[in-house]
Amino acid sequence: MTPPPWVFIDLLTQYVGQTVELRGWLYTRRSSGGIHFLLVRDGTGVVQAVINAKEVDAATFDRADHLPQESSLILTGAVRSDKRAPGGVEVTVRALVVLQEADPYPITPKEHGVEFLMDHRHLWLRSPRQHAIMRVRAEVIRAATAYLDAQGFLRVDAPILTPASVEGTTTLFETAYFDLGTAYLTQSGQLYNEAAAMAFGRVYCYGPTFRAEKSKTRRHLTEFWMLEPEVAYLDLDGYMDLAEGFVSAIVQDVLRNRERELALLERDLAPLRGVKPPFPRISYDEALEILKRAGKPMPWGEDFGGDEETVISSHFDRPVFVHHYPAACKAFYMQPDATRPAVVLAADLLAPEGYGEIIGGGQRIHDLALLEHRLAEYGLPRDIYRWYLDLRRYGAVPHSGFGIGIERTVAWICGLDHIREAIPFPRLINRLYP
Amino acid sequence: MTPPPWVFIDLLTQYVGQTVELRGWLYTRRSSGGIHFLLVRDGTGVVQAVINAKEVDAATFDRADHLPQESSLILTGAVRSDKRAPGGVEVTVRALVVLQEADPYPITPKEHGVEFLMDHRHLWLRSPRQHAIMRVRAEVIRAATAYLDAQGFLRVDAPILTPASVEGTTTLFETAYFDLGTAYLTQSGQLYNEAAAMAFGRVYCYGPTFRAEKSKTRRHLTEFWMLEPEVAYLDLDGYMDLAEGFVSAIVQDVLRNRERELALLERDLAPLRGVKPPFPRISYDEALEILKRAGKPMPWGEDFGGDEETVISSHFDRPVFVHHYPAACKAFYMQPDATRPAVVLAADLLAPEGYGEIIGGGQRIHDLALLEHRLAEYGLPRDIYRWYLDLRRYGAVPHSGFGIGIERTVAWICGLDHIREAIPFPRLINRLYP
Repeated sequence: MTPPPWVFIDLLTQYVGQTVELRGWLYTRRSSGGIHFLLVRDGTGVVQAVINAKEVDAATFDRADHLPQESSLILTGAVRSDKRAPGGVEVTVRALVVLQEADPYPITPKEHGVEFLMDHRHLWLRSPRQHAIMRVRAEVIRAATAYLDAQGFLRVDAPILTPASVEGTTTLFETAYFDLGTAYLTQSGQLYNEAAAMAFGRVYCYGPTFRAEKSKTRRHLTEFWMLEPEVAYLDLDGYMDLAEGFVSAIVQDVLRNRERELALLERDLAPLRGVKPPFPRISYDEALEILKRAGKPMPWGEDFGGDEETVISSHFDRPVFVHHYPAACKAFYMQPDATRPAVVLAADLLAPEGYGEIIGGGQRIHDLALLEHRLAEYGLPRDIYRWYLDLRRYGAVPHSGFGIGIERTVAWICGLDHIREAIPFPRLINRLYP
Repeated sequence: MTPPPWVFIDLLTQYVGQTVELRGWLYTRRSSGGIHFLLVRDGTGVVQAVINAKEVDAATFDRADHLPQESSLILTGAVRSDKRAPGGVEVTVRALVVLQEADPYPITPKEHGVEFLMDHRHLWLRSPRQHAIMRVRAEVIRAATAYLDAQGFLRVDAPILTPASVEGTTTLFETAYFDLGTAYLTQSGQLYNEAAAMAFGRVYCYGPTFRAEKSKTRRHLTEFWMLEPEVAYLDLDGYMDLAEGFVSAIVQDVLRNRERELALLERDLAPLRGVKPPFPRISYDEALEILKRAGKPMPWGEDFGGDEETVISSHFDRPVFVHHYPAACKAFYMQPDATRPAVVLAADLLAPEGYGEIIGGGQRIHDLALLEHRLAEYGLPRDIYRWYLDLRRYGAVPHSGFGIGIERTVAWICGLDHIREAIPFPRLINRLYP
């Protein structure tokens, strides 16, 4: 007799009437009237396994009555259609093998403190809520890369170990690098993206980026993933066109492919459904007006903090671009406005519902003399940027790009209170474990 | 009159008979009989632009005669079908705007030394050969993730900054981490993958990994990208089944979607066409026999170097698994063979044609006591692996996984002499720039 096939829970509906093998973990258990009901998870779903005293031997029945949560088990049983069951099926157990009887599971239905859950992140991930978030995260990444691939963008990975900083010199992780002195962990792949865009036209990189910033807010991680497209011959408006189509596609893909997960997270879908082009676009000066009218005035020239972003974005029902920032708010490479050099052709995208900045980007300086001037102004070492200056010597063109923070995007789409749940193993200034 | 549309070179065949705008860079130029022929690249392809003295003004014609390579330009012209032209079309120029006249381009048709090219990697990428390699690389990444996504694997990113080593403690990059002491750059996402596999069943991570190893060979980078699947309830044979299907799918996708690039690289396609399951599987002991017969004997218990891998793999026409290594060759977490504990259930995949190891993997220890014993044997700090031991307390199951080195895979598929060409910005022990 051939042994029954090992079947994943999400495929069980195709096996109604057949005997199958399930391999998974015990999620919860209850007993009633001589029957044990085991909820079993295997990573693809959860199914109810029914153990009836009349259908199994006494040892198996007794064993099932004392199994701790998260015990690993292999079940054999018949798949039965049951409209009341979560996945439309349940399994009538004929045999049960317990691979390992778990120790008493530390995560219980009672409330746990955040630090306790973070210390047990390797186990916390097993909860349905974290599973749902991780599935949305994977879909965001898939949708983002698929959108750009379909448009002909070339993925070109930027290096992580770099000889210089992109966003500023005060917030860098550094490491000794053989005989070459110090290497820094990248803060952004952008400068390398610019080289790739001059070679291949439209490119993107996707990878981890690092900020050794002492920020302890619900929006900051020391290690976060960023996807960064960069396009030759693209101006500020073109970047905003690209970014709004891109963000809309991601949100609509998640709505289409992760409906069950968003429901489990009790996410209000109405605001997400409205995330479609065009996005409103306001200038920095207009944003200051909004803050003033809201009773939160800010002097011209300063960058927005989280509170200001929340006030600004609450005026719109979808993500809003804020463009034409004061030069001093932004990095050295931003292209100044031709008619008003005190502002640069940069734009950030603020997510609605208080989530704030998820994208930063703009048009880069393509003129060699201006870029050299800016490097000097910012006190950056010219020698290390030699190759970056080369891009302005050999076929300089106007070009633009942006970076989207994956965790901030996931936090917004899932409606999370804190970014730490948007990444499998968060790194914060006080957290390097597990 | 509406301005002509900006069209990418790879779409020009759809615009025959129409006037379009091209935006790109000058690749090469020649003149003959009152006509200039400009080869223009834009990242999607190369097209010949024809400038006839009779059809443009004298200034434009003269300008085109003195343009240096890599100058950035916008051309307007009519698309003409021409069977002799590389893409089947050429463009008859009506107007030419030079955005920036390039400095004399440092990379010329003459032979350059490797260090010179590496110093100019940001420009070297513009060459057709490097473009082809980068396009194969992007396709390898796309094909690999698509294969796993289609099978229901969940992408779960592993952290880069970690409190401990995976593969050994002597080859770690380290960085100061706030008040928490030292963080290490990951050598592998595997341990975290194991936590994710216990939560979600089948998972993978993809990201950069680091080895501060003083290896200066054609197969070593200090920063390289690795894709690592991990599967609960999978044994050694199951891992080899998974890996051979996975590698075959990647190679066949590249053959299908990157034919032009492989032709440009003058890659012999015959060995790639044969990369289909099943792959031969030999034991470590059998591999020693092969070495002995080849006059390169090696004592039992040592790991293979590049030379040995070349000898072994040259006996097979497709990738070959070597399994059941001596425990001392492999990491602390490898599951010992039940009947012969001196060997472990590990298998490496060696690529043919002298490329050697591209995959390492195997079955992991799932028994708590054995894992604790191994940690002690290897002198690893128990406290930092607390969470990893937890995976054996709460629903331990046999599980297996592997890591595939993306650059080694790209080097093999493209037929490269050195791994440095398989990554956009290589990091070697003597190279951190650009």
